[in-house]
Amino acid sequence: MTATSSSAARDDRILLAHGGGGELMRELIRHEILPTLGGGCPPEPGGCGAILADSAVLSDLPPGQIAFTTDSYVVKPLFFPGGDIGRLAVSGTVNDLAVVGASARALSLSFILEEGFPLADFRRVLASVGETAREAGAPVVTGDVKVVERGGADGLFINTAGVGVVPEGVLLGAGRVEPGDAVLLSGPIGNHGVAVLSARQGIAFETTVESDVAPLGELAEAVLTAGGAGVHWMRDPTRGGLAASLAELAEDGGVELTVVESRIPVLAGVRAACELLGLDPLVVANEGKLVALVSADAAEAALSALKRHRLGAQAALIGYVSGRGQGRVVLQTRAGGRRLVELPYGEELPRIC
Amino acid sequence: MTATSSSAARDDRILLAHGGGGELMRELIRHEILPTLGGGCPPEPGGCGAILADSAVLSDLPPGQIAFTTDSYVVKPLFFPGGDIGRLAVSGTVNDLAVVGASARALSLSFILEEGFPLADFRRVLASVGETAREAGAPVVTGDVKVVERGGADGLFINTAGVGVVPEGVLLGAGRVEPGDAVLLSGPIGNHGVAVLSARQGIAFETTVESDVAPLGELAEAVLTAGGAGVHWMRDPTRGGLAASLAELAEDGGVELTVVESRIPVLAGVRAACELLGLDPLVVANEGKLVALVSADAAEAALSALKRHRLGAQAALIGYVSGRGQGRVVLQTRAGGRRLVELPYGEELPRIC
Repeated sequence: MTATSSSAARDDRILLAHGGGGELMRELIRHEILPTLGGGCPPEPGGCGAILADSAVLSDLPPGQIAFTTDSYVVKPLFFPGGDIGRLAVSGTVNDLAVVGASARALSLSFILEEGFPLADFRRVLASVGETAREAGAPVVTGDVKVVERGGADGLFINTAGVGVVPEGVLLGAGRVEPGDAVLLSGPIGNHGVAVLSARQGIAFETTVESDVAPLGELAEAVLTAGGAGVHWMRDPTRGGLAASLAELAEDGGVELTVVESRIPVLAGVRAACELLGLDPLVVANEGKLVALVSADAAEAALSALKRHRLGAQAALIGYVSGRGQGRVVLQTRAGGRRLVELPYGEELPRIC
Repeated sequence: MTATSSSAARDDRILLAHGGGGELMRELIRHEILPTLGGGCPPEPGGCGAILADSAVLSDLPPGQIAFTTDSYVVKPLFFPGGDIGRLAVSGTVNDLAVVGASARALSLSFILEEGFPLADFRRVLASVGETAREAGAPVVTGDVKVVERGGADGLFINTAGVGVVPEGVLLGAGRVEPGDAVLLSGPIGNHGVAVLSARQGIAFETTVESDVAPLGELAEAVLTAGGAGVHWMRDPTRGGLAASLAELAEDGGVELTVVESRIPVLAGVRAACELLGLDPLVVANEGKLVALVSADAAEAALSALKRHRLGAQAALIGYVSGRGQGRVVLQTRAGGRRLVELPYGEELPRIC
């Protein structure tokens, strides 16, 4: 490499000018982002202009109420067993829509990049975003790129927002949960958090645990179709894990939940890693799990629907709503005791998503 | 300060646990974010749960097509003459909706915070978000908080996404622009970029230039009401300035634009600062200006509507569409010459928004 090859050397890194609103940003969007996300430029007048417009106009939404959500993603490292920040950003936002009963129809994608970030890694993240968006049936329709100087950010952050449609008649919420409702969980917990921690700290557990990160739109729809109006509340237990989701539901809905530890599926590798790290699997993040509160008479149908889907094969009924007014979660432990499940304070696992 | 006062000392700074998905995050949302944004928790069952839900369900949208946009904000410094990152984040997203003819109906708000960021500054930004959202008539309905360790980000970044509604019959786009269309500009250019640069570099220009950052929903609506179907295209010239907006329009619409330099309003303070910094005001960012391409017969009405609004008092007709097919912008200079206005490369002004 000599001084004269600097332009070639620069070519494989993100530059400040990629976020400057000028020609280089337009090139990045045209030549990297649009082709990878499967859009490309339509041939008609306006061409790429329509796609590069400030806002996307969604012309083919089905009837129903509009749902709207956002999340920023700062996971570290960007790539981990079973996924990466791109798959995470699409799945997380699709899942936030899914749990209010909405099918994701359009996603936004906004990058904050650190100057010098490798273009190859950016392309890899983009490809993952595109693939996951196709898997979820939710196209990326609008976006943004900002670049900060070296040291101003840690590589790459993503924000995704999402617009979905809630079909007529679907109404979910903590206020609908009632004593007797079953607590359904779509599969083993803690995989995402353990996968990210192992990648971050270079810890080799006995078996490699892969993140469960996946878009849950289909799975949630299957539960709603099978359980109908008996489906009262859904949540994807991410940061804070299953413990946070259940503790929040108990508080928001003013109900007491009883869950049975032995019924909560946890992979052996996750259990071993959690013991090593001193973590309770209940507080470890998931990115491809669904919790559903379903009336007693609809629980069996909803559980069967979960089990029939590839993402819910290990679904289980893990507990029930045992009372009203207490706002707490009681765990029946393996040892035969009972303890309260508290909302974690929040310091357990920074940058897990 | 002694070791025992550490908890009080911690209390005025953002902690990693504020982004951990647990109790501390919930407290931050309940006690800082919701009250400031004017929401608060409804008394009915579900209470705060409905607001803290993963997605907002928008129940009162008027008829029309849904528009959707996003932007991340990394402006440095966070506070500058005339505004701050909070006002910028709301205005930028509202304006992206406004220029496709959409009225903003709901905003999302997502923070990436650096551990140790002063809570007082966070509150100041939040207050500005709330105030600007009320000014724009666009409530914040959903959000997210992530915290990264010290050095992992530069203080505070914001992403806002927005959902708006485009009334029936409104269709704007580069493909609709035609020879003879007038180029209208709502006021003097370059204020935002110069205000941020002066704050960043501690440069004291002869007069303090204030950012023009403002939500433009009303102003855009006034243009559409006055100009009707004669309004063909609108844009808020942010990063890359007026030069980027016009160059992109010329390329996307396949038209030649001719603009007259002497008709483009530039404040004396901005002109002086640009001369000092070696910048062309045409490439300096604005955050409260509107460019509208309007058919010749509707131009006068649209210009009058701009001038009647407080944000468009200095509006001007600065040029016209002079041909088809060339995809370029010709500037008639003050000196009597002609030069092409190119899309800037992008390196001029990093972290301007």
